[in-house]
Amino acid sequence: MEFTSKLIEQAVNHFSGLPGVGKKSALRYVLHLIKQDTQDVSNFAEVLKALKSDLKFCKKCHTISDYDICEVCANPIRNHQLVCVVQDYRDVMAIENTGLYKGIYHVLGGLISPMEGVGPSNLTIDSLVSKVATQEVKEIILALNATMEGETTSFFIFKKLAAYEVTLSAIARGIAVGDELEYTDEVTLGRSIINRIPYNNSLSR
Amino acid sequence: MEFTSKLIEQAVNHFSGLPGVGKKSALRYVLHLIKQDTQDVSNFAEVLKALKSDLKFCKKCHTISDYDICEVCANPIRNHQLVCVVQDYRDVMAIENTGLYKGIYHVLGGLISPMEGVGPSNLTIDSLVSKVATQEVKEIILALNATMEGETTSFFIFKKLAAYEVTLSAIARGIAVGDELEYTDEVTLGRSIINRIPYNNSLSR
Repeated sequence: MEFTSKLIEQAVNHFSGLPGVGKKSALRYVLHLIKQDTQDVSNFAEVLKALKSDLKFCKKCHTISDYDICEVCANPIRNHQLVCVVQDYRDVMAIENTGLYKGIYHVLGGLISPMEGVGPSNLTIDSLVSKVATQEVKEIILALNATMEGETTSFFIFKKLAAYEVTLSAIARGIAVGDELEYTDEVTLGRSIINRIPYNNSLSR
Repeated sequence: MEFTSKLIEQAVNHFSGLPGVGKKSALRYVLHLIKQDTQDVSNFAEVLKALKSDLKFCKKCHTISDYDICEVCANPIRNHQLVCVVQDYRDVMAIENTGLYKGIYHVLGGLISPMEGVGPSNLTIDSLVSKVATQEVKEIILALNATMEGETTSFFIFKKLAAYEVTLSAIARGIAVGDELEYTDEVTLGRSIINRIPYNNSLSR
């Protein structure tokens, strides 16, 4: 794709650097922005800059936050002895949106993935271990993706925490609500039978 | 979708204002940007601002340009008596990328569409008529979308230019190169038979 305007080309290159955005979509975004109010586009630009300059990471749980301590960690009503370990900010949002979790979080910032060059030292695992070592935490829930990377990371944390006195649990894996057995993969279905639960507990609350 | 950070929420709202971008994609873009270099994100923001402050529209053909007169209109080798009328900048790019057109352009800035409140006065049709009136143009090629709006706009321009001495043509409509007859819609196929061309002309050059 050749552009007759250098400025358009630069803008398209920036947008097409975003995950899953091609040159055609990027050009569509740029032409859309050209038609918008100068003030709107200027605000957009300021917010982008602020993402790098003003955004903070919670000093306790490492999630994205507008403050030094995030709203969840700063909330005295939450159970601070129950920590849910997640991969990133999106998972915090997903769990918060369920409205069913009253503990706090610990954001790893990724998953162990030798393919992508991410090792345990790139994640906030040491910070998690020191939380456990100081005995401020009673239970840890591992809520990582059900992928190879997620399972590896969970196992690594399990090994790291084996020496400490802390309850370690993992979120339930099984048939999603609304799913039909017929279309469920064998591994999930097999595990869901082995890890069956008392019927009373399976009733949605 | 609820956000625990106001800044993230603002950024997501800006991105999801782009055509075809939902909240989930917008959040993905924002989290991607957070991981990028401060300098990169800052450049992105500057380019966005420049889109509104530095971008110019060619005074002759109204296309997007970095200069007062675009590169095509400023090129003495191009045939300035042959004008191709298109809807917007993307069509200029598409035709330029074929490498087969040696005339200049006239960008309307849209199509007549009562549904969207776009009338002839919102477009650069008057500017086109005055180019014809001063006799600087010998031939006009209408290259608008083969949609209701495109056909309406073409017909409006045809009526406007009826009193002047100028050759008016439209780009060929028919079976696209590589298409199979079986899957072509009836209107296109019917017209392509009525508007058949000498076999010699149909050989790709």
